[in-house]
Amino acid sequence: MTTAGSAQGPSSLHCLRCGQEVRGFTGCPRCAAEGIGANAMPPLADLAGLELSSYPGGPWGWPETLPVSGPPMTLGEGDTPTVRLRTDPAALGDGLAPECGSELWVKYEGGNPTGSHKDRAMAVGVAAALETGADTVVAASSGNAGAAAAAYAGRARLRCVVFTDEGVPPALAAQMDLLGAEQVQVEGGFLARNAAMARAVEEHGWYPLTSFSAPSPGGNPYADEGYKSVAYELARDFAGRRIGAVVVPTCRADLLSGIERGFRELSAAGLVSAAPRMVAAEPAGAAPFTAALRHADRAAQERTRVESHPTAAFSLGEERPCWQGLDALWRSGGTAVAVAEKEFVAEQRRLAEQGLLLETSSAVAVSVARRMLRELPELVVAIGTATGMKELASGAAGG
Amino acid sequence: MTTAGSAQGPSSLHCLRCGQEVRGFTGCPRCAAEGIGANAMPPLADLAGLELSSYPGGPWGWPETLPVSGPPMTLGEGDTPTVRLRTDPAALGDGLAPECGSELWVKYEGGNPTGSHKDRAMAVGVAAALETGADTVVAASSGNAGAAAAAYAGRARLRCVVFTDEGVPPALAAQMDLLGAEQVQVEGGFLARNAAMARAVEEHGWYPLTSFSAPSPGGNPYADEGYKSVAYELARDFAGRRIGAVVVPTCRADLLSGIERGFRELSAAGLVSAAPRMVAAEPAGAAPFTAALRHADRAAQERTRVESHPTAAFSLGEERPCWQGLDALWRSGGTAVAVAEKEFVAEQRRLAEQGLLLETSSAVAVSVARRMLRELPELVVAIGTATGMKELASGAAGG
Ligand SMILES: [Zn+2]
Ligand SMILES: [Zn+2]
Repeated sequence: MTTAGSAQGPSSLHCLRCGQEVRGFTGCPRCAAEGIGANAMPPLADLAGLELSSYPGGPWGWPETLPVSGPPMTLGEGDTPTVRLRTDPAALGDGLAPECGSELWVKYEGGNPTGSHKDRAMAVGVAAALETGADTVVAASSGNAGAAAAAYAGRARLRCVVFTDEGVPPALAAQMDLLGAEQVQVEGGFLARNAAMARAVEEHGWYPLTSFSAPSPGGNPYADEGYKSVAYELARDFAGRRIGAVVVPTCRADLLSGIERGFRELSAAGLVSAAPRMVAAEPAGAAPFTAALRHADRAAQERTRVESHPTAAFSLGEERPCWQGLDALWRSGGTAVAVAEKEFVAEQRRLAEQGLLLETSSAVAVSVARRMLRELPELVVAIGTATGMKELASGAAGG
Repeated sequence: MTTAGSAQGPSSLHCLRCGQEVRGFTGCPRCAAEGIGANAMPPLADLAGLELSSYPGGPWGWPETLPVSGPPMTLGEGDTPTVRLRTDPAALGDGLAPECGSELWVKYEGGNPTGSHKDRAMAVGVAAALETGADTVVAASSGNAGAAAAAYAGRARLRCVVFTDEGVPPALAAQMDLLGAEQVQVEGGFLARNAAMARAVEEHGWYPLTSFSAPSPGGNPYADEGYKSVAYELARDFAGRRIGAVVVPTCRADLLSGIERGFRELSAAGLVSAAPRMVAAEPAGAAPFTAALRHADRAAQERTRVESHPTAAFSLGEERPCWQGLDALWRSGGTAVAVAEKEFVAEQRRLAEQGLLLETSSAVAVSVARRMLRELPELVVAIGTATGMKELASGAAGG
């Protein structure tokens, strides 16, 4: 098999949309000039010769699939369980009869070291930062990404600066603090926060672990390759069974895109016979992908812009559909679904009552999966991106 | 291989200390009459014919090792990662030189569904409750056990009542509430709480998932068998390497005893060549095992009683050494070590700085492991029993 990385350092990046070679971390400048946030990614890995049954899980389970060549940076991330939800109508009033072949599974990413899927990305992103010789990493985040960045930076002995805004929940601020991040709270919301990060990257040469430009192309491409491991784990765990769809809580579509890329690699190597449809789950108050797919042609889809409203699913909320997410939906024959606040907050409670305490934004994906199963009985996996434990502090959980 | 359980229901229990057959969940009455809390357990499982390399992890990975025969009750518990800590003197001032063969590993149990090792026990305990036909389970807990009981009861659609006392941290109370537990706060501390639970078990026939009698024999014996899986996972993950010691934060020694039983089964079947020494890690303010081992003869050790003081390691704190813990220390050639408040609170911060946010009581075990490695360079595993995320709410984490 070939290796995506190289001994000289992180491999080269090409725009997913126009193919142009890109340097830096602000996505493709040519596509940005058209108003479209398109990420530039390393080449897909060739999985030929690998055996799913011996894949140990996690991003470092198959290090040769990652665009870094340095030593693994790990806190035990990945290899998370899938839990089958009860779907019988009597208990849950969801209209799903098990005998119809409906299976609703949640992949519980809350078991990762800092409690979210972001650990998969930051493990790889921090390894990539080390490879460039950076001494400081930087993230713009008011949530799980900042905590994950802090943890892996601490592990690697890199300095970590996190730009936050007024909306950072107290428990997450406390978590980042304990994990050793220097937090800089920027007044003026999301845009001011990203601008501060952009200056830090330019002026100090700090290594950026999250997106900070507009239109956002999505996250750090090296980091994002860590998400492919979600696909590998699902393919291994459902060994030969057909997964109809994977539903992902979506903001800038880093996770959605990473999982689709993982399945594409698996398909190319003949390790799965069919890749699942990817489905973007969005809160109704901030649903650019759902809005985009209402347009008939792709040119209009790419240029969609919506208003983003505050939502209890606080880690979600973008105004434009990142191109990488559209690409994943198109390639996999997937779709995007928006869910009303009331519906996913009720879903969060319902999940907790059967033992799974998830972050509010994760419940959005489960709501969507449940709706889909009412239309078509099949095996659907919703990604439970983060634990609900961090929301206990602020009283947000179960809102 | 033989099966520990039976089709008729949970298997019979015998006192670990005197061998008498015991019914109910208050330990051995004969030993209790001597003032000694001795648990009664099912027979050890015979692992002959099993292969460690294909053990999938978790209590249900080898269901035949469990004293229940019903269907697995799972939320994806177990199969947690081990993370190697940095032990170089420059970074941590700990005086450990890696070239001397010192290896300090943490098994991170915080990744379990409700954030602690208790999920392993409650998964099995709730399955045992179902097998008896119970419709209500009950726990006395102001911490992780209550949350785990609530989650698995919810999964199994059993009613769950948790008796708490004034000391229950707000985040844990919120977690139990969301997971569907009925919480009953009992005034008068620990003893009043347990007395209330004892009445509920007697009067209503509710199935007890935690210890409630005095002297405490330790937890529900069926549930506790779920902890054997920690030993199986360690033996699998360190495949053939010699683990010198396993250090466990200890209160009633359910986890300590369960891990020792697991290693004993593995040794008997020839799946490990040598079982590690078991080490009880205690906060100095509540250290009955450390006090017990200061006595020369076992009769005095069994009858030790200490004063228990409030500690930041709030999930720990017993006045007597449960006999099952002494048994595990004796059989494995282990020991008990008490650590001062200041030392383990500093350790908790130090762990967070390298990316691992653990509950305060887990840091006690890491402190002890670090001390041991200063004396004898070997491979030591400290059990990180729970995530520090639940402490973020109350501001307890990091003191
Ligand atoms: Zn482009
Ligand atoms: Zn006895």
